[in-house]
Amino acid sequence: MRLEDAIQMHGMIAIALDVLEQCEAFAPLIPEVRTNLDYAKPHAHTTKDVLAIDGRITVVNGKARAAGKPQFGASSHMARLILELAKSDPSIRAGVNFASNPALMKWLSAYCADRGWVFSVIDRSTEPEEIKETEGASMPWKVGQAIKAANGRVPKIFYETGAVGKEPVSVLVGRDPIEVAEQMCEIARRYNAGR
Amino acid sequence: MRLEDAIQMHGMIAIALDVLEQCEAFAPLIPEVRTNLDYAKPHAHTTKDVLAIDGRITVVNGKARAAGKPQFGASSHMARLILELAKSDPSIRAGVNFASNPALMKWLSAYCADRGWVFSVIDRSTEPEEIKETEGASMPWKVGQAIKAANGRVPKIFYETGAVGKEPVSVLVGRDPIEVAEQMCEIARRYNAGR
Amino acid sequence: MRLEDAIQMHGMIAIALDVLEQCEAFAPLIPEVRTNLDYAKPHAHTTKDVLAIDGRITVVNGKARAAGKPQFGASSHMARLILELAKSDPSIRAGVNFASNPALMKWLSAYCADRGWVFSVIDRSTEPEEIKETEGASMPWKVGQAIKAANGRVPKIFYETGAVGKEPVSVLVGRDPIEVAEQMCEIARRYNAGR
Amino acid sequence: MRLEDAIQMHGMIAIALDVLEQCEAFAPLIPEVRTNLDYAKPHAHTTKDVLAIDGRITVVNGKARAAGKPQFGASSHMARLILELAKSDPSIRAGVNFASNPALMKWLSAYCADRGWVFSVIDRSTEPEEIKETEGASMPWKVGQAIKAANGRVPKIFYETGAVGKEPVSVLVGRDPIEVAEQMCEIARRYNAGR
Repeated sequence: MRLEDAIQMHGMIAIALDVLEQCEAFAPLIPEVRTNLDYAKPHAHTTKDVLAIDGRITVVNGKARAAGKPQFGASSHMARLILELAKSDPSIRAGVNFASNPALMKWLSAYCADRGWVFSVIDRSTEPEEIKETEGASMPWKVGQAIKAANGRVPKIFYETGAVGKEPVSVLVGRDPIEVAEQMCEIARRYNAGR
Repeated sequence: MRLEDAIQMHGMIAIALDVLEQCEAFAPLIPEVRTNLDYAKPHAHTTKDVLAIDGRITVVNGKARAAGKPQFGASSHMARLILELAKSDPSIRAGVNFASNPALMKWLSAYCADRGWVFSVIDRSTEPEEIKETEGASMPWKVGQAIKAANGRVPKIFYETGAVGKEPVSVLVGRDPIEVAEQMCEIARRYNAGR
Repeated sequence: MRLEDAIQMHGMIAIALDVLEQCEAFAPLIPEVRTNLDYAKPHAHTTKDVLAIDGRITVVNGKARAAGKPQFGASSHMARLILELAKSDPSIRAGVNFASNPALMKWLSAYCADRGWVFSVIDRSTEPEEIKETEGASMPWKVGQAIKAANGRVPKIFYETGAVGKEPVSVLVGRDPIEVAEQMCEIARRYNAGR
Repeated sequence: MRLEDAIQMHGMIAIALDVLEQCEAFAPLIPEVRTNLDYAKPHAHTTKDVLAIDGRITVVNGKARAAGKPQFGASSHMARLILELAKSDPSIRAGVNFASNPALMKWLSAYCADRGWVFSVIDRSTEPEEIKETEGASMPWKVGQAIKAANGRVPKIFYETGAVGKEPVSVLVGRDPIEVAEQMCEIARRYNAGR
């Protein structure tokens, strides 16, 4: 990739990471599997084209903290999710995952309606066995479900229901990691204030 | 607590953590929810009596690395598990959790048989709804299941099957964290060598 | 400052820091006072306008490692040095400090001559008492000395001799931190190879 | 060494490090060369017998923070200083270095007098050239000076004056790192409160 693009991407993710680490309300929304913050190159094809936090973002001393540094290829699941979403909406290049529970999902649904954001869900319990068993088939199916459940629109926020062995998680996507981190922190602050 | 005990516990967990961080074969066995390494005071009653790694042990640059420092009260699930086991066998004061999958469980079952270690399982799918819904009832039930499935013996290693929203994980327990970390690393090395 | 500039600066310093941390030959050139890597905004006036590594770059496990994250205002001495040099050559916006000893200085003098780089020295023993005692007068004097000793040219590399209470250090400056980090690592590798 | 000793030493240094990291008044007393905290085995002979902080203790985000983990052999100057002092007083096994300036030294002199602690000084300007040039001769000379300047008594706190290329630093020694860290923090708090 061009050095200019690497500089721009590293700069964006450094600032975005700082937004999340400084956001006190965010730490309680970090799920058991921890949070990653991903940023895909334009025209990205593989997880190697996606910049993410090595070791993910965890909670240390009550605060969100990156375990390692941003690196290309440091994310797998979140990276593949963004690559798949970008096939339907190429403006999507960044995302962050966070906790999911019924109260938060209800609140988020109203929050998204308010802002005119598309909110959706992936019900993993409906995933066909043949999809689960075919290498690489699961992510296209999931993203297809999220778009289908939103009447053909690409969602801004969606959650995956838990499944056997899988923690339910929410995902917020956007154009770049600074936008995504600021929206994430705003959500965390408002949700926290409303409890 | 007495300063002598705090010194001894902090010294043990520092050396044990080093064993895990230096063990190259261990990193691939860290589960999505990450590993914790716990060490309970003698006669511990609450999670505040259990020393564990703040932010858990995660994988950075391909290696196991503690996200934060050992602190009393830094662990919840693993701490309560050890407190519950200690009611049946007070010599159990330390534990480490790691990944679970069918191949590893089959291998571990044989490994435990070889060494004369009790191996067991907690099948979360059989957990009654009233247990799940009663605050604090789940852990006694789980430990009861693990002992029951081992014909009344307290297991050295056991795993919890996955459930909806829950990753399957394995647990190894023992008298102190150095013993536990060394046994964990030995298992990781042998399992890795055999693949 | 404009967000675009902050992104570009954070991206540059992240990549430059990675160059130094990955450069095995560099760690032995980190001085007792440790290394900083600085990057000034265009038209910078104060140390708050200079991005640098919080806690400096130290040696951990034999490797160069940033103690904290890049932050504006994290550097004092190096930041003021770059601000002062920029008054004579506004293209200078970045710098890194490293060890100084007679063998290395002799080698560097020849290396600079080879590449057509201006090499200079600040002899702190000649600093007048009234300069030392006047708040803020020392840095202009030093930079003036470095330029004077190079016959009026702004140096690419220079060193400050030790003084009472002061470790001798070398400094390499340039347009941006990536250029500076790559030149620093190249010097470290060649110097190391030649010993 | 015996495992019991390693456990006890690692436990002591972990708790002592926590005391320094939590001590807000201490960070401003960390010198440019940074602080180390050292703990020698009983009957220690070489720096490999001394446990110290890899990468030293630096200031990150305004707070004292260990750059790496405690390791045997991680310290050189401070380790040799403690080994040398222990030849005169074998009860000395731990030490910490910190800043030195005229105001602090005056305050410390009174503080030590108050507590009945021996306070001393090593005037590096009087070090003979033949000592400086003989490998390994400098430390015995220094410790000899510190004891001589205290009328033959081994000091609790002393400072080295600055020399050409050398920052002046203070040192506090004691029986173990917890004692040393608590005394260090008490000094920092009182000195800070009195300004």
